[in-house]
Amino acid sequence: MAKIKKINHIAIAVKDVEESLKFWRDAMGLQVDHIEDVPSQKSEVVFIPVGDSEVELVKPTSPDTGVAKFIEERGGGMHHLCFEVDNIDEMLNQLKEKGVRLINEIALELPGRKMAFVHPKSTNGVLVELYEVL
Amino acid sequence: MAKIKKINHIAIAVKDVEESLKFWRDAMGLQVDHIEDVPSQKSEVVFIPVGDSEVELVKPTSPDTGVAKFIEERGGGMHHLCFEVDNIDEMLNQLKEKGVRLINEIALELPGRKMAFVHPKSTNGVLVELYEVL
Repeated sequence: MAKIKKINHIAIAVKDVEESLKFWRDAMGLQVDHIEDVPSQKSEVVFIPVGDSEVELVKPTSPDTGVAKFIEERGGGMHHLCFEVDNIDEMLNQLKEKGVRLINEIALELPGRKMAFVHPKSTNGVLVELYEVL
Repeated sequence: MAKIKKINHIAIAVKDVEESLKFWRDAMGLQVDHIEDVPSQKSEVVFIPVGDSEVELVKPTSPDTGVAKFIEERGGGMHHLCFEVDNIDEMLNQLKEKGVRLINEIALELPGRKMAFVHPKSTNGVLVELYEVL
């Protein structure tokens, strides 16, 4: 059975990076590791380590992304929850066997990592990301 | 300056504990530490350790709670994000100085812990809980 190692990150959808940093960095005192433009996800992402996890502030750079639609509907907030697993292929098979609805039936392979999303219909409304470090 | 130590937990609002465990425990393979009736919060809470954090499944036991209203509006999902701090009184002062809107201006003291909520208006729409272990 595949194992969940930890919460890799919690993604928070934000409209404006500098505005959001007034709370997360300036008021809460969290340290920003780095800010990255992620063209594949049409987003600018602020990586903020917290304990053995991260908070990621995600600002869409295009209106046609899921995060942009989420902001349009809700104004922002927690968008998805990412768990790091030891074996993502095994985990996806395990979820399929249990009848869990997946957004990605097969993990997407990117340099250094594999990832897949689970459908909120099967998770009490939480968009769950699974992530394996290669 | 007060320091955030880690993510203490992510609270997920659920309608039905047994139904929700089909995903989190049976499919994802996470271990339930314990299930607790929390009369002060009119909730039943499932504590699921993940790495150095926890996922908490919160099922309201009364319709007049914030979590019950959240479920009514959205069907469920991530309800709040709790950070463990080394000194909650110092953190609340620090947030007030920065103009952050608080739900609890003064930390609530409970056996073994102090806690306070920050208003989502100041946090990009995230209901943030602060928590100090005494």
